[in-house]
Amino acid sequence: MFKVKVIAVGKCKEEWLRIAIAEYEKRLSPLLQMSWIQADDDSQLPLLLRNETFIALDPAGISYDSIAFSQHLLQAIEKTGSRITFAIGGPNGFPTDLLQKAYLKWSLSPLTFTHQLTRLVLIEQIYRSLEISKKSPYHK
Amino acid sequence: MFKVKVIAVGKCKEEWLRIAIAEYEKRLSPLLQMSWIQADDDSQLPLLLRNETFIALDPAGISYDSIAFSQHLLQAIEKTGSRITFAIGGPNGFPTDLLQKAYLKWSLSPLTFTHQLTRLVLIEQIYRSLEISKKSPYHK
Repeated sequence: MFKVKVIAVGKCKEEWLRIAIAEYEKRLSPLLQMSWIQADDDSQLPLLLRNETFIALDPAGISYDSIAFSQHLLQAIEKTGSRITFAIGGPNGFPTDLLQKAYLKWSLSPLTFTHQLTRLVLIEQIYRSLEISKKSPYHK
Repeated sequence: MFKVKVIAVGKCKEEWLRIAIAEYEKRLSPLLQMSWIQADDDSQLPLLLRNETFIALDPAGISYDSIAFSQHLLQAIEKTGSRITFAIGGPNGFPTDLLQKAYLKWSLSPLTFTHQLTRLVLIEQIYRSLEISKKSPYHK
């Protein structure tokens, strides 16, 4: 069982977002266990990320298409013993000093998304990654 | 009042997505009227787009950050007399021959999104564009 942890600043405020994320978690559950850790603000991130090998979501990071991200994610999970952590900063972006400690800085898009929407785009890409590795028709 | 039409292939299946899109439509309603036209499949797109100046959402299109997209959208709305149309293809992508007729081919991300999620990312960026033009704190 793969374990993916997401450390994100701020509450998941919208009901529709909780429903959407729960739907992807359910689809992922046979293969992968998701856990979400909420930081109240950026200042809590250093402590929460202290012992983590993490991928920071950062608009200035490297971008992949979904197939390249799928390969990268599966390699990363293999390297880190089936566990991987993603970190999403607050409204002011990811703290610069912490960014240097990230295993990878990944940009979902050159567009800015809300922090709420970032969580949904992230979990959909994680689900898509596994479907790509299974060669399922979800990704075509 | 700006008018934005979105011509998209396929139903908006998920209840959470309808709620999310309705929330953004409500926020946009003082300034901009959204309308959604559903095509059952790609073959209906040529007829629906016949008299439209449209922006095609295409992964191989040009990408912008949110500020550049905001400027582009407002210029496009001005040029086309307060109306703009977006077109989202089906699971096989946007038909190549129609792509040539697009006013602009725009890529939201190098990642592949579901067609459902594409609608939400699009309306959030349209909302963000107007907030950027108002210099509101929504975009920072």
